[in-house]
Amino acid sequence: MARQILDFLRAKDGFVSGEDISRELSISRAAVWKHIANLRSIGYSIEAVPHLGYKLLSIPDKLLPEEVSHNLKTKIVGKNIFYYETVTSTMDMAFDLGFNAAPEGTVIFAEHQTNGRGRLGRSWLSPKGKGLYMSLLLRPKFLPQEAPKLTLMAAVSIVEAIKAQTGISAFIKWPNDILIENKKVAGILTEIDSEPDRIKFVNIGIGVNINSIRSLLPDAATSLSAESKKSVCRLELTKDILRFIEKNYLILINDGFDSIREKWKASSSILGRRIKLNYQNREVSGEAQDIDMDGALLLRRDSGFIERVLSGDVIKVN
Amino acid sequence: MARQILDFLRAKDGFVSGEDISRELSISRAAVWKHIANLRSIGYSIEAVPHLGYKLLSIPDKLLPEEVSHNLKTKIVGKNIFYYETVTSTMDMAFDLGFNAAPEGTVIFAEHQTNGRGRLGRSWLSPKGKGLYMSLLLRPKFLPQEAPKLTLMAAVSIVEAIKAQTGISAFIKWPNDILIENKKVAGILTEIDSEPDRIKFVNIGIGVNINSIRSLLPDAATSLSAESKKSVCRLELTKDILRFIEKNYLILINDGFDSIREKWKASSSILGRRIKLNYQNREVSGEAQDIDMDGALLLRRDSGFIERVLSGDVIKVN
Repeated sequence: MARQILDFLRAKDGFVSGEDISRELSISRAAVWKHIANLRSIGYSIEAVPHLGYKLLSIPDKLLPEEVSHNLKTKIVGKNIFYYETVTSTMDMAFDLGFNAAPEGTVIFAEHQTNGRGRLGRSWLSPKGKGLYMSLLLRPKFLPQEAPKLTLMAAVSIVEAIKAQTGISAFIKWPNDILIENKKVAGILTEIDSEPDRIKFVNIGIGVNINSIRSLLPDAATSLSAESKKSVCRLELTKDILRFIEKNYLILINDGFDSIREKWKASSSILGRRIKLNYQNREVSGEAQDIDMDGALLLRRDSGFIERVLSGDVIKVN
Repeated sequence: MARQILDFLRAKDGFVSGEDISRELSISRAAVWKHIANLRSIGYSIEAVPHLGYKLLSIPDKLLPEEVSHNLKTKIVGKNIFYYETVTSTMDMAFDLGFNAAPEGTVIFAEHQTNGRGRLGRSWLSPKGKGLYMSLLLRPKFLPQEAPKLTLMAAVSIVEAIKAQTGISAFIKWPNDILIENKKVAGILTEIDSEPDRIKFVNIGIGVNINSIRSLLPDAATSLSAESKKSVCRLELTKDILRFIEKNYLILINDGFDSIREKWKASSSILGRRIKLNYQNREVSGEAQDIDMDGALLLRRDSGFIERVLSGDVIKVN
């Protein structure tokens, strides 16, 4: 009902009378007042003027499901949204939901994570209300070894959403970091629940530094606001990320990996360059030559041997 | 303390006086009596004779941690045991434990599962107290695509334990069924929690029909008691399974897959034979030629093409 009241307020530019709302939604004037009070308590600014009624002045800077859903226009991604002020990690929630038959496209947002995580058990800093901390649950009919494709698909989508919202060209540091001016602005963590021959579900964790203050971030990191020199609308960026992921995911499952791979290559920060990698507890270097059909990196060693690297850490780019 | 009393009773052939127990363990006579009463309530048969003391007559037919641990002599597998009368599935418990940092080798037993599961979401019948329903949590430094090796390692271990306990030669129907006289006596379910380039943990679910009555099992299934025409000690079989798994797991991680693969091939019910497979939603047939270094089946199609099959259902063997 709160959502219907919001939609009603949003539909009008000026004031809406409590009487109109009450009549339209078949609830009492007292109920209207209670819902308005409730909306104010979660951060909506709603003006009330006697004889004129209510007017929506601003929405809270939160990734509330009713705001993310509004005009989202996706068919899968974000049709089912869970929202938390604070969680250990949205990935923990995503696993619970995965085991409990949550549908493909379920999204979990948190304003703050106490134990946000990155690859290989690393942590992800999650200052309250400053970034995007989300997990997306997918159930593709892929083999487990195809999962890297999903990481690359998500990376491409985040780059497209950043471009659309801020005009900034971000680059992908294989396999899962998004960089601006060589500093990390977003990361992707792919976790898989599988049997040897099929994926049961995949959780894609996405962390984006949006309005974090530069000085509070690690040296090698940046935020969208720091790079664009203005605050960035978390809600609109989030909605665009969901939209681009849906578009690219449908391309991936319907048409295959080719066009995602091409987009990915166009945004790569390493292809054609000499890199040093940390991979399976050893250091290897060579030229980052290509991405293969599974999303693995093809590294041309000095010996000429082409090494296929599923995932690793790029520690140096020349 | 109950466990120490049990060990004390087990160490003597005849009666042990309450006074001796009380002195040895530094507890009161009343405490001794309470522990004895408690042991009786969980199924231990303990005789008490005035002036003579206590005598252990029999242990309950349950996979109690104190019984499984007794003389187990493993270093990893089963050092940490969880036991339940009834669970949905030991795999559910294993995932919870995996996420909560349970150590490698943790084992979960249940006397009964309300939602025991097999591959591809199939169910596994779990009559109370008649079979072995367990999950084993491992944390090998493997790539996710190497997980089939663990399924084969477990299959080999179960065949060895069945042979040791009953003298029966069981065979492995690739990838995860154990057969006696072409009927299914045990199954293995491998579930993996991973990132694209590393396994975080693997749960190996093992179901063995031990003392189930033949007429209550599906047509294509059998039990060890039905095949050996006598009841089989669940506890000793279980302990042997844990011991053989430990042995073979250590071989696998220290010396590689070679010798497990050779053992596996020696117990295979399909190698060298013409089979029909259900695989990735299609039917293929050919000769089961070999198992490769990742544990995948190499199927020689009629065209001569060798197809590499990660997992599937053998639906016909000629």
